[in-house]
Amino acid sequence: MLTLFHAPGTCSLASLITLKEAELAHAVHVVDTAGGEQNTPAYRAINPKGRVPALKTEQGILTETPAILIYLAQLAPGKKLAPLDDPFAFAELQSFNSYLVSTVHVAHAHRPRGSRWADEPSSIEDMKRRVPRNMHECYTLIENTMLKGPWVMGEAFTVADPYLFTISRWLEADGVDIRDFPKVHDHVRRMSDRPSVIETLAVKAG
Amino acid sequence: MLTLFHAPGTCSLASLITLKEAELAHAVHVVDTAGGEQNTPAYRAINPKGRVPALKTEQGILTETPAILIYLAQLAPGKKLAPLDDPFAFAELQSFNSYLVSTVHVAHAHRPRGSRWADEPSSIEDMKRRVPRNMHECYTLIENTMLKGPWVMGEAFTVADPYLFTISRWLEADGVDIRDFPKVHDHVRRMSDRPSVIETLAVKAG
Repeated sequence: MLTLFHAPGTCSLASLITLKEAELAHAVHVVDTAGGEQNTPAYRAINPKGRVPALKTEQGILTETPAILIYLAQLAPGKKLAPLDDPFAFAELQSFNSYLVSTVHVAHAHRPRGSRWADEPSSIEDMKRRVPRNMHECYTLIENTMLKGPWVMGEAFTVADPYLFTISRWLEADGVDIRDFPKVHDHVRRMSDRPSVIETLAVKAG
Repeated sequence: MLTLFHAPGTCSLASLITLKEAELAHAVHVVDTAGGEQNTPAYRAINPKGRVPALKTEQGILTETPAILIYLAQLAPGKKLAPLDDPFAFAELQSFNSYLVSTVHVAHAHRPRGSRWADEPSSIEDMKRRVPRNMHECYTLIENTMLKGPWVMGEAFTVADPYLFTISRWLEADGVDIRDFPKVHDHVRRMSDRPSVIETLAVKAG
């Protein structure tokens, strides 16, 4: 049995949608981030980083969205959630996920989590002001050079799609108008229609 | 033939060392980052992000270190640079690389590249002051919970090792004393003795 440590509104949504797409039996532990559960000794024993997602498996605990998503794709090869037998296509998928985790998620995080990287209130506010521009630049690259359409990798739905969808949902709060990006906008609509997403978001506002 | 677009002193060193460890035929194009080559139309046609590394292959161009490293491991399966047949171990390796790209490299980048995330000189200085503490926290986690020793994944050398080595070389400039982390310190020494690293660093100061 797999257990996902998830917090609504965070990037762990991508792993939760992927669990459903893969039709893998799983439990969900909702981490009370508002109450600081991620900083308790009990949770730090699960994930010393104090973050979500974490995935408890029979072999141990995994963290980091790009690693978890590919692991789930490998556990359910029949679902073809990643091009596991094509090294170049697999690398393209990995490249996309890496851009999301290292650049896009980071650009977003400077709005709610600027205190990770600076101390002065004026610096935190400066970072917040910059977020709309940086997220707009990231999504311009995604729209023009990465998102093949209709899905990230083209005709095949992959684990990159729940991940992009998860971050695209932050655009409005980040001060970016998704209508500037027609392919991304269409992608969010398509994702919103999938049973895995409807089911996930119905359980608890994500 | 593979061509790596590389800039000494950057994270593309990890891909260059891995090319040599994999014994894959390759050319190296040194990008003149001081002269701004990464912002030229010619280079943007190779990598629209204007960053290194980029790897030109016969099937197209790949970017993002975690994607390139795993791709190279897959091109040279006999070198066993990744546990390609063990999904959990593979996910652990991917998790480590993801932590480096999304958290450790980002923590470091707030020293030389703070202008990516804020505009005011006071904010940039504030970010710089915070880098030693953040990098020390990252390496405390690596030392205590991730680096199995002697290599990242334990007895087997993998692509995570050139990547960790590349970032560990930035610690001194980031204001962190590597001697606070005995396993990391030992790792840097072991890496420095490998022919792939000696050869790479001899060609041009990296």
